[in-house]
Amino acid sequence: MRILVLGGDGYLGWPQSLYLSSKGHDVTIFDNLSRRHFDLERGFNSLTPIKTIHERVAAWNEISGRQIQVYIGDTMEYEELASAFRDVQPEAVVHFAEQRSAPYSMIDRKHAVFTQTNNVIGTLNVLYALKEFAPGCHLVKLGTMGEYGTPDIDIEEGFIEIHHNGRSDVLPYPKQPGSFYHLSKTHDSHNIMFCCKIWGLRATDLNQGIVYGFETDQTMQDARLATRFDYDQIYGTALNRFCVQAAASYPLSIYGKGQQTRGYINLKDTIRCIELAIITPPAQGEYRVFNQFTEQFSVVELAEMVADQSKRFGLETQIQYLSNPRVEAEQHYYNATHTRLIELGLQPHLLNGSLLESLIDLAIKHGEHIDRNQIMPTVNWRVAKNAINNQGDPLFKRVSDQ
Amino acid sequence: MRILVLGGDGYLGWPQSLYLSSKGHDVTIFDNLSRRHFDLERGFNSLTPIKTIHERVAAWNEISGRQIQVYIGDTMEYEELASAFRDVQPEAVVHFAEQRSAPYSMIDRKHAVFTQTNNVIGTLNVLYALKEFAPGCHLVKLGTMGEYGTPDIDIEEGFIEIHHNGRSDVLPYPKQPGSFYHLSKTHDSHNIMFCCKIWGLRATDLNQGIVYGFETDQTMQDARLATRFDYDQIYGTALNRFCVQAAASYPLSIYGKGQQTRGYINLKDTIRCIELAIITPPAQGEYRVFNQFTEQFSVVELAEMVADQSKRFGLETQIQYLSNPRVEAEQHYYNATHTRLIELGLQPHLLNGSLLESLIDLAIKHGEHIDRNQIMPTVNWRVAKNAINNQGDPLFKRVSDQ
Repeated sequence: MRILVLGGDGYLGWPQSLYLSSKGHDVTIFDNLSRRHFDLERGFNSLTPIKTIHERVAAWNEISGRQIQVYIGDTMEYEELASAFRDVQPEAVVHFAEQRSAPYSMIDRKHAVFTQTNNVIGTLNVLYALKEFAPGCHLVKLGTMGEYGTPDIDIEEGFIEIHHNGRSDVLPYPKQPGSFYHLSKTHDSHNIMFCCKIWGLRATDLNQGIVYGFETDQTMQDARLATRFDYDQIYGTALNRFCVQAAASYPLSIYGKGQQTRGYINLKDTIRCIELAIITPPAQGEYRVFNQFTEQFSVVELAEMVADQSKRFGLETQIQYLSNPRVEAEQHYYNATHTRLIELGLQPHLLNGSLLESLIDLAIKHGEHIDRNQIMPTVNWRVAKNAINNQGDPLFKRVSDQ
Repeated sequence: MRILVLGGDGYLGWPQSLYLSSKGHDVTIFDNLSRRHFDLERGFNSLTPIKTIHERVAAWNEISGRQIQVYIGDTMEYEELASAFRDVQPEAVVHFAEQRSAPYSMIDRKHAVFTQTNNVIGTLNVLYALKEFAPGCHLVKLGTMGEYGTPDIDIEEGFIEIHHNGRSDVLPYPKQPGSFYHLSKTHDSHNIMFCCKIWGLRATDLNQGIVYGFETDQTMQDARLATRFDYDQIYGTALNRFCVQAAASYPLSIYGKGQQTRGYINLKDTIRCIELAIITPPAQGEYRVFNQFTEQFSVVELAEMVADQSKRFGLETQIQYLSNPRVEAEQHYYNATHTRLIELGLQPHLLNGSLLESLIDLAIKHGEHIDRNQIMPTVNWRVAKNAINNQGDPLFKRVSDQ
């Protein structure tokens, strides 16, 4: 299948591109390299060394004999996007090309505006490009479980049957996103649903949980194929960050009470889920939503698992509770449905000791590159202008150690 | 009270500003004059002559002795917005400053992108200006009943109690907006709700029905105080347009079956509703939603009322059914709650014969200015690139006459 991967140079986009290429699909990457640019701007870096997009693609060609084509382009520049669509004539588009960090979106007005403009208008451009150049193409869009927030009822997959005053209807599930980033994904969902209705486009909106993990069958084949591994306060997701903190003998930092429960998914399952969505596309005009995660954990549970596993390396890991920089319920009901991808054939890689061990081991191996100043949260949801200093904001002082 | 009216030069913003000024409030208008610019661009015009913002304000001062201050500025230019907030230190902000036409937003990509950028990012700027310069100020935001779409259950005011799998929660009412314009208002609603939560802002989101009418107690005092009256395909709302069509002996144009039912409200009630919201503000941190309309009608009902009333002027008015340029349910359940503004004291001006008579009379008086080429719909929801020609698109041909 001809597949265009928007944002194919990122943490998920790159292993996704490799995976789809390994399965014989004709993969084209479209990426503006903005994630690498942010590293340059802030002095951040992936814990694991990553190669340039050109080196990556050349290495993959050398190893697999397969070609991945690359467009350096921006979804905000319609002509760049349009020429990729015109040239590739994609049958599926996987859309990762968004600013993907909640803390980034909460730094200040400039970063909030960038996030919502880039994500919402970028996706609007993707929708117009689909309509104009590839109306039969299947859009596979990365959304987030964070669109739902933490309602006091079960979370369903995109839609819910509501009974009210003696009548009933199946309606979009109400959204309560918790950052300007999460809001941008909610806006996207509404725009995409509408375009499926008016233009007969077809789309799968994947409300993805928090992704952890580093290796896939493809990236393991050569160090030049490695994907990035972020542990910093802006881009590092909880589990990856905990493993780095454990490896460096830093306390595992929990925001607030740590009872925040979320859906999680292994990187290997993410790329498989997207393949499953691609090979079983929705009908023309259909907008469908899958909740893309495999297990639920509270932050404390994750931290305890990491602390426990780190003992195997002779590490004594502490857990540290910080006052919460985010505005969120710290204790809440959480039960989210996630059956549709299982029905399509997903066989989950559940979180286990050996996976945690491999992540901690990875962090130990790259221990010399760990920069503590990148880890502690400095972006406060309650403040409209955050200075991202790399020393940790005194506001997020240690509340207690466990 | 110090009140900043964003978009205070428009159809609603102007009479709103006059009304609040007449009540003794200290009113400042902030407007980028974009609605007038669109007229210049397209060769459109208000049916009734309107004065420049400078002449209007001077006339009001002459007649009432009251001053309205004016900032020519754009919500997209944060520094312009910030200086108005800094100078005025508003206690309430009424936010009309959005691109307000559904057909405009559906013309092509450029117009869709403009609508969503201007409205969503403009409002994001307003939220940051509130947080930065006036955190206790009450935001009164104009939304639309069109955010809800036409669900098969009763529409509530912003939130709905959902019972699901033995649990229940009160959640944001699910939204199914029907154009890129309506979507922009839904995006705004989510962003505003979030800022009330994280920053403790206070906001009233008014999901307004379709406004009809022309005169208020203030605009009637002098011809120089008149507000605009649009009947064109882009900005003309259904009832105003029907009255113009009747006056000019053109058939009343109904899109599709005409059973589309919506909420409607008299201009006089709109400005009173906003006053009611202002004088009974929400608590700090509260986000509340009122459905701001007084009656529901189907398009056919409205057309029949206008046809009936036009007989008083000796007019024989036909009703014409056009194939629907929009993608919408043409027959549907519709029952929307609208009690909260009544509870605050609204005494509705319901649609009656004498109001219709006055609108038709107005259109007859200005009959020489009616341009038929502005009336017929040329923007097709199903097409991504509409040429707005002024001759009527052959696609929207007459289906049948009644």
